[in-house]
Amino acid sequence: MSAWTLLNPSYSREAVNLGCRHQEVSGKKKLIIKATGGGAYKYADLFKEKFGVTFDKEDEMNSLVSGANFLLKAVPCEAFTYMEGRKDFVQINSSDLFPYLLVNIGSGISMIKVVGDGKFERVSGTSLGGGTLLGLGMLLTKCQSFDDLLEMSHKGDNRNIDMLVSDIYGSDYSKIGLSARTIASSFGKVIFDNKELKDYKKEDIARSLLRMISNNLAQIAYLIAMWHGKLKRIIFGGSFTRSHEYIMETISDGVEYWSKGETKAMFLRHEGFLGALGAFKSYEKHGLGSLMGHHLSEQSPVASPRPQLEQKSNGPLLVESTDAESVGCCILGSDTMKRT
Amino acid sequence: MSAWTLLNPSYSREAVNLGCRHQEVSGKKKLIIKATGGGAYKYADLFKEKFGVTFDKEDEMNSLVSGANFLLKAVPCEAFTYMEGRKDFVQINSSDLFPYLLVNIGSGISMIKVVGDGKFERVSGTSLGGGTLLGLGMLLTKCQSFDDLLEMSHKGDNRNIDMLVSDIYGSDYSKIGLSARTIASSFGKVIFDNKELKDYKKEDIARSLLRMISNNLAQIAYLIAMWHGKLKRIIFGGSFTRSHEYIMETISDGVEYWSKGETKAMFLRHEGFLGALGAFKSYEKHGLGSLMGHHLSEQSPVASPRPQLEQKSNGPLLVESTDAESVGCCILGSDTMKRT
Repeated sequence: MSAWTLLNPSYSREAVNLGCRHQEVSGKKKLIIKATGGGAYKYADLFKEKFGVTFDKEDEMNSLVSGANFLLKAVPCEAFTYMEGRKDFVQINSSDLFPYLLVNIGSGISMIKVVGDGKFERVSGTSLGGGTLLGLGMLLTKCQSFDDLLEMSHKGDNRNIDMLVSDIYGSDYSKIGLSARTIASSFGKVIFDNKELKDYKKEDIARSLLRMISNNLAQIAYLIAMWHGKLKRIIFGGSFTRSHEYIMETISDGVEYWSKGETKAMFLRHEGFLGALGAFKSYEKHGLGSLMGHHLSEQSPVASPRPQLEQKSNGPLLVESTDAESVGCCILGSDTMKRT
Repeated sequence: MSAWTLLNPSYSREAVNLGCRHQEVSGKKKLIIKATGGGAYKYADLFKEKFGVTFDKEDEMNSLVSGANFLLKAVPCEAFTYMEGRKDFVQINSSDLFPYLLVNIGSGISMIKVVGDGKFERVSGTSLGGGTLLGLGMLLTKCQSFDDLLEMSHKGDNRNIDMLVSDIYGSDYSKIGLSARTIASSFGKVIFDNKELKDYKKEDIARSLLRMISNNLAQIAYLIAMWHGKLKRIIFGGSFTRSHEYIMETISDGVEYWSKGETKAMFLRHEGFLGALGAFKSYEKHGLGSLMGHHLSEQSPVASPRPQLEQKSNGPLLVESTDAESVGCCILGSDTMKRT
């Protein structure tokens, strides 16, 4: 018997991205898990002691890239853009896939220039990522979860927190291309308000935080893409973006702004599981890779150039996580796929 | 009688950078002030109504660049680097000054590529500036001023707030060049601590904030400098850096980190007054510019390749502001210079 499992604890302290199977060794069943991410190192002893599970560690960046390349090649219309509340799926020809910039957004952010299968370089990153948004959000709004914070942000108005160009100049500053609505200073209004934290609406703070992190991320990603050979595609993945439309929207706005409309942020339908998929993919060396590709292609929805907003981006392969601490788990048998 | 004034209210809502003089118009003395910055627009009517003062508005970016170019050319060893608590003054040959990147740090940040006298382009900026640092600092630590926040930061330990690479991987991630001490996620530890704001040391939060803003600013400035023709000098000015050694230190660390030691952040001895100087300089068209240059050159301290840390970076021309709301004022007569 063989079984593979994809797990990705969303916002656990150190993500453990896993692809596992049972092996018969000397007549004994032994569970060996392909694991990547920080947790693969930190929790290796714990898993062995508590569950008798051995981690077969895979390099995280390698797994992320492998997972992303696989999805982009095997799944029709895996990538999409998100503007003004609408997903537009993009069919990328495999022969025209490389190079691209993969921005993996977890607690921190890695930016990886991908030039081929197994050919990549982590060219930059930033410490202002999902952990910063949620960490500051918890301190400032007492939100209980990432979803709480995002929901609040949707009801807020960052103009009560941020200093806009119009707050400084009374209007726009057209000579240098700054509109009146441009954020000149995130949280800049606070320094003149003479108010305490409790005097502000949590929703406004959440909105300001989201804008700050997303704009900043978009700017750095765009600059990195330009500097490293004007990469034409910037693909954002990772648990920070998964099923979070407000985040995709603000990142897309940011890339649109910084690139002056020349570049669009792209997202992946199966975002948040790149590392797990990559670790799983490493079983290809056992001659089992073709099975997975076959299943994925069959399960993918038909590509739609103008899908509705409510269309779920995640296909059936990976389980959506509704709890920040939950573990999504999907077990594939040799010829069946069922969810647990 | 003629008089010129340089004023720069530090962290007023909208800075008004001024250079002023009296004019005799139809037998009446009329005070006309060369003014720049957002306040030059916003407070024009108020100044006229309350003081009978007319603003002769100068473009802010033009004034900043004019001020910076003037200082870099006229004042010996105006620029310096700041590493490991030591200022190293740099004598830049006027013929080798351009191009450079001027990063003006106020509440928000402008990044200006300067290629000659009066020749420049605001190529980018970021909303994560001094206003963000102080705004978030006030909300999170209840600090009363910028100096309060910086003093706190010096006593804090950001490792209690930030998630380091070692917190994720248990060690470094040498394969991609990340040391164990690298900040993977600013404020990232907070999301797993299950603590409230009051449970954290304010000093630790202040330190984390300072690192976050400075690292981010350094990264964006370096990327902009590289993208725009690998500019060899990045000069940081503005009230955010003025006399604030902790900030200069963290920005320098950031540029060192992101450039892998190839670029050093530079600062200006008369930082924080670039706009005021530029506005003042616009009087050159009245044939009065040579006077100012003469005074500045005479008043500059002798260049020292290895000055002591305690040496004040600001010369006598500009008044240091010790109160965040104070207005520094220096009046120059036709052949005298005195402080008010």
